[in-house]
Amino acid sequence: MSTSAITIEVALADRSYPIHVDAGIIDRAGELVAPLTGNRSVAVITDTNVAPLYLDRLAASFAAAGLTLEPIILPAGEASKNWRTLEEVTERLLDLGVERGDAVVALGGGVIGDLTGFACAILRRGCRFIQIPTTLLAQVDSSVGGKTAINAAAGKNLIGAFHQPVLVLIDPELLDTLSDRELRAGYAEVVKYGLIDDPAFFDWCEANAAALLARDRAALAQAIAVCCRSKAATVAADERETGDRRALLNLGHTFGHALEAEAGYSDRLLHGEAVAIGMMQAFAFSAEQGLCSPADVARVRAHLSAVGLPVTPDYRGPAATLIAHMRQDKKMSGGKLSFILTRGIGRAFVAKAVDLAEVEAFLDAFATR
Amino acid sequence: MSTSAITIEVALADRSYPIHVDAGIIDRAGELVAPLTGNRSVAVITDTNVAPLYLDRLAASFAAAGLTLEPIILPAGEASKNWRTLEEVTERLLDLGVERGDAVVALGGGVIGDLTGFACAILRRGCRFIQIPTTLLAQVDSSVGGKTAINAAAGKNLIGAFHQPVLVLIDPELLDTLSDRELRAGYAEVVKYGLIDDPAFFDWCEANAAALLARDRAALAQAIAVCCRSKAATVAADERETGDRRALLNLGHTFGHALEAEAGYSDRLLHGEAVAIGMMQAFAFSAEQGLCSPADVARVRAHLSAVGLPVTPDYRGPAATLIAHMRQDKKMSGGKLSFILTRGIGRAFVAKAVDLAEVEAFLDAFATR
Repeated sequence: MSTSAITIEVALADRSYPIHVDAGIIDRAGELVAPLTGNRSVAVITDTNVAPLYLDRLAASFAAAGLTLEPIILPAGEASKNWRTLEEVTERLLDLGVERGDAVVALGGGVIGDLTGFACAILRRGCRFIQIPTTLLAQVDSSVGGKTAINAAAGKNLIGAFHQPVLVLIDPELLDTLSDRELRAGYAEVVKYGLIDDPAFFDWCEANAAALLARDRAALAQAIAVCCRSKAATVAADERETGDRRALLNLGHTFGHALEAEAGYSDRLLHGEAVAIGMMQAFAFSAEQGLCSPADVARVRAHLSAVGLPVTPDYRGPAATLIAHMRQDKKMSGGKLSFILTRGIGRAFVAKAVDLAEVEAFLDAFATR
Repeated sequence: MSTSAITIEVALADRSYPIHVDAGIIDRAGELVAPLTGNRSVAVITDTNVAPLYLDRLAASFAAAGLTLEPIILPAGEASKNWRTLEEVTERLLDLGVERGDAVVALGGGVIGDLTGFACAILRRGCRFIQIPTTLLAQVDSSVGGKTAINAAAGKNLIGAFHQPVLVLIDPELLDTLSDRELRAGYAEVVKYGLIDDPAFFDWCEANAAALLARDRAALAQAIAVCCRSKAATVAADERETGDRRALLNLGHTFGHALEAEAGYSDRLLHGEAVAIGMMQAFAFSAEQGLCSPADVARVRAHLSAVGLPVTPDYRGPAATLIAHMRQDKKMSGGKLSFILTRGIGRAFVAKAVDLAEVEAFLDAFATR
């Protein structure tokens, strides 16, 4: 174990689990997975991008622990979060004889983690699963907390389950092979934690983003640790988002999801890029409502722009189309929609029942700035 | 409310809910549903058998409470518990704008209840649902307890979720339109409660089965009350079947599911009929193992035969085929299978790690008796 290794516990009573963060931990995955699974032949779900990079290495670590690796390789990309792929994966796991006490491993980014987690949530009404996230976005956000889903015709992540993993293994070394664009998109979720409730971490981001995006190991490890600690505390306090606490993690996401839907969940706009634009919109809308100072908006815009993240959408249609997507948001209640707005950097809050007409007028103006 | 009305609480902390049993309660469904749903247009999922009988009546009760009824009518029969229908129903509910705080109603037998419950479990990671069971089987068993599922290629109910309803409305009057065969099949699950742990209730069954199957209102109400009380206590004690208690409700089901799979989940063998044969097999196998007296086996056989339930399968193939189905059972653990066996009437227990070779030899002999 390297000296920079840390372990963060997600405290959820009988569903508690550890997040181990350690460079090179993929080579110890077998010994960590073996005690958590009843079977010796373990299914690993991954995608066509990740498989050629890391599957052999994972299989070697499995073999050293007396496990064999049964690969299920899906097409890379958001389009795999659909009904057909969910069915194929679930039926394949049944064919492999996976039982409730067996674990299934997700090796990949958010798409692989979300899909695998959902398949494991519904397989025999729930089997174990383990996350080995390979993107920055998955390492700092989606691999922790048990939100699993596929996309519906009506919108993103509308079909899913809360199903916690039994283990999360985060290996910052795996980010070496991530494209600059994917790394930057994941960084948007890193900045998010500062913007929500940790202004000192936003300061850190401003000072260290360049090093982090140049894949400086210490900067990456530091960011991952801060984000996972924050996420773990949030999930422990509000697992199913019945309160406001977990909802804050959706900063930028209601705006962002609508843009992703318009882009057809394609590579034209990555999730993290949509979140970057969405956070800008949340700050700008908050300022327009007199909630947040224009200086904070400018500071956020300056930082996101400096690291090369988009801050305005390339979408140029009427905002009414975006509003229609927002109406499918899971946070809709009684026809009203909650938004995560802000009183400044590190001061996000849940605004209940925001007037969608005001949001629409704001978005029509925002697009032309 | 009639004088015979009873309410049974399923005690599950913040997921507790009432079961109301009352003749004619369908006509008060609207007023009972209205406080539990955020929307005024409520989706009701039912099938082609039930819709012409009860949908107008339910709609009238909804209208009296200021609700409109949005029907989703599926083909009747077990075949509807499949991926395609799950997808259609879930996407339709999204199109209708169903939110997490809205309720969806299942009006039908076990198939409709299982499918609707599962769709509601995964819609936006969980919305409310209400059971109005229309078969004896659903009224005494499947509508209570939150087991939801569809069938997989590999076997019955292998894909699903634990998701409790917020309300169960049981109207014994609805059984007036049930076929004799369906009523009898449901009665197998009634007898099951006596066989598991209530020998006095088995005595009652022997004395009152004829009246119950002739649709005597008092006998039906009595049986429903006993079964729902037993089921509610079991679910409160062991919601997710992590202990042995809830597993006992699977008496006859491991044997029965294999027969259903062989019959292709068709009308050739109804679920309750398979359970009747399965319970006979569990008793006979227990006797063969020296666990249970042959006299008890004979008494169970005599009662099931007297009411016209099957006690031997029409399946004549090799038992190895049935064993292959059993290997897909959700209770499989480490390659071993638990069975619900018995020391006599009212003395069922969980037998861990039963030798499947012994079961196979037993079944080969049983089929020729």
